[in-house]
Amino acid sequence: MTISSLRISNLRNISESELDPAKSNNLIWGSNGSGKTSILESIYLLGRGRSFRSSKAGPLIKKSEESLSVFSQYNKQNQHYRIGISKTNTSTEVKINEENINKLSSLASILPLHIITPQSHQILEREPEFRRRFIDWGVFHVEHDHNQLLSRFIKTLNQRNAALRSDTGQARIWDRELIKTGEQINAHRFKYLQLLEEALKNELDLFLPIFKCTFDWRPGWDREKGFEHALKETFQSDCKRGFTQSGPQRADLVIRIDGQKAAEVASRGQQKLLITALKIAQIKVTSQINGEEQILLLDDLAAELDRENLGKTLNRIQALSVQSFITATDDILFKDFDIERVFHVEHGRIDTG
Amino acid sequence: MTISSLRISNLRNISESELDPAKSNNLIWGSNGSGKTSILESIYLLGRGRSFRSSKAGPLIKKSEESLSVFSQYNKQNQHYRIGISKTNTSTEVKINEENINKLSSLASILPLHIITPQSHQILEREPEFRRRFIDWGVFHVEHDHNQLLSRFIKTLNQRNAALRSDTGQARIWDRELIKTGEQINAHRFKYLQLLEEALKNELDLFLPIFKCTFDWRPGWDREKGFEHALKETFQSDCKRGFTQSGPQRADLVIRIDGQKAAEVASRGQQKLLITALKIAQIKVTSQINGEEQILLLDDLAAELDRENLGKTLNRIQALSVQSFITATDDILFKDFDIERVFHVEHGRIDTG
Repeated sequence: MTISSLRISNLRNISESELDPAKSNNLIWGSNGSGKTSILESIYLLGRGRSFRSSKAGPLIKKSEESLSVFSQYNKQNQHYRIGISKTNTSTEVKINEENINKLSSLASILPLHIITPQSHQILEREPEFRRRFIDWGVFHVEHDHNQLLSRFIKTLNQRNAALRSDTGQARIWDRELIKTGEQINAHRFKYLQLLEEALKNELDLFLPIFKCTFDWRPGWDREKGFEHALKETFQSDCKRGFTQSGPQRADLVIRIDGQKAAEVASRGQQKLLITALKIAQIKVTSQINGEEQILLLDDLAAELDRENLGKTLNRIQALSVQSFITATDDILFKDFDIERVFHVEHGRIDTG
Repeated sequence: MTISSLRISNLRNISESELDPAKSNNLIWGSNGSGKTSILESIYLLGRGRSFRSSKAGPLIKKSEESLSVFSQYNKQNQHYRIGISKTNTSTEVKINEENINKLSSLASILPLHIITPQSHQILEREPEFRRRFIDWGVFHVEHDHNQLLSRFIKTLNQRNAALRSDTGQARIWDRELIKTGEQINAHRFKYLQLLEEALKNELDLFLPIFKCTFDWRPGWDREKGFEHALKETFQSDCKRGFTQSGPQRADLVIRIDGQKAAEVASRGQQKLLITALKIAQIKVTSQINGEEQILLLDDLAAELDRENLGKTLNRIQALSVQSFITATDDILFKDFDIERVFHVEHGRIDTG
């Protein structure tokens, strides 16, 4: 599964640029602000319909232009796709083989991609929401109805919360639907985490052999008693607070190293290795289930890694059957490694070599 | 103002180690997880009484040990200090010249230090609280009663909020004190920001000449109408919500580049340059007012910067009269620069050279 050509128009500081990526590793290097991350953003747009750096289209569109567009030729299991996306400040248009597509999740199914950026530390450092998002993204690729299920759950939850606040005593009529969707979401997540943990073992042995990492799944309620019981038990205090206190919207994955929170005991570099291990395990699980090749974007891979660990990471990526796009401020650190194609970016212009 | 010797015991993976830093630039390099950031943590402990990586002492203390300690010899304006700090899981003991010190803020006044880490991006990316903390830290060094004022304000605010929730109608009795302290806090912050903006000009010209950065101060209420008016205006809705909606606890500094939020338009490297400019401006303001030299900690300085910008940053730091401690995964990137002393760290052991 590879992108064989990529054309970018008016995205950040890139006016018009084209590149023909190689099937395996692609290195994109340039100075700060040259536009290298914008190339990753353009690929991410093709796979997810939005940027990983900004929720709004505005900052993505080149100054004094009204729209941006990205177009790619893309091969997957002997099929050839032409995928295009264009964005104005207010609208998004997606075309696959010249046909308009309304659902952005179609993109995610066709072009499954993973990304590691300096912000990926959020998985370890920040609120449970960031870990749920990581897990749900993985689940979506193995259980395609997961996103619909999540939407249905959130809709029911909002209705229950509104009823809790309106004092009509009607809140509990939503419980049945809430329990049904909530337990299904948890079952998906739990099953996925088991696969992920299995796939992780090898990666952790490789990347963090000195540590003992443990993963503790919290579904959002007392696991012994179950979701239904939790809803009953907290109903009085739910009414008082005006929102539902248990459920998959409160789930978390506690990641520990030698018994303590990973973000507190591992160095930044070690955290990056742990995140890399998690993402590689995610890629492995997806390809086990779907037999699918995937795309991996690595923004500023060398940052925070020493030379040995950079090498380890590159070798591991090469061993996976992914097409990868790696950015760097310098190509010097990559001289010893087998990089299939190198692009240099300067002031938004891309050159091969 | 310099640390002339530093002794670390049982901090993370450092059992017992000693180093004699140089007066200007010190480079500390080693592999991922070697212990280089722990050395910065030990210096930070001396200046602030806590770590920048963890709010708890537990993760700082070496495994299977019960306490950590850091001791330093320190010279400031021809005075010699011996500063020591030790921590167990539940207690902190600070000694300055063998005398026990109860207030951690005494450390901050004696040993003013600044830090830039990969997490410093939070100033641009995250909630207003992170920008308020940055500003208040700067204000504290020029208005020494600022922290007391903040505590007094928070105490009054909590009393007002409790009264709002208790429906006794007594909430407004706190308004006079709230307005008095709140306006004083804002006056401090506003005055400080004007100094900061002035000091920033030169730094922005140097680090980000292609951008137009603007700073928009929001005191936490409508500036035209004032704090008193804002409190009156929102009183009914404060009662309903159970908390005070205007005041310096809601202040923010909106940082824009070419009219858009800096975190959305600047690349990660450019953001790092902007943060560096802000911190250098902060150092300049503090030394203008206090005539004080300061200490600057730079964790993984090279990450996300290209070689030219790394050079620019190092040259600029050399031109300030600060003692600096820079960590790196490799010394190769620093070969071309004038570094006064180099330390190599391996498995928690520190060697000169």
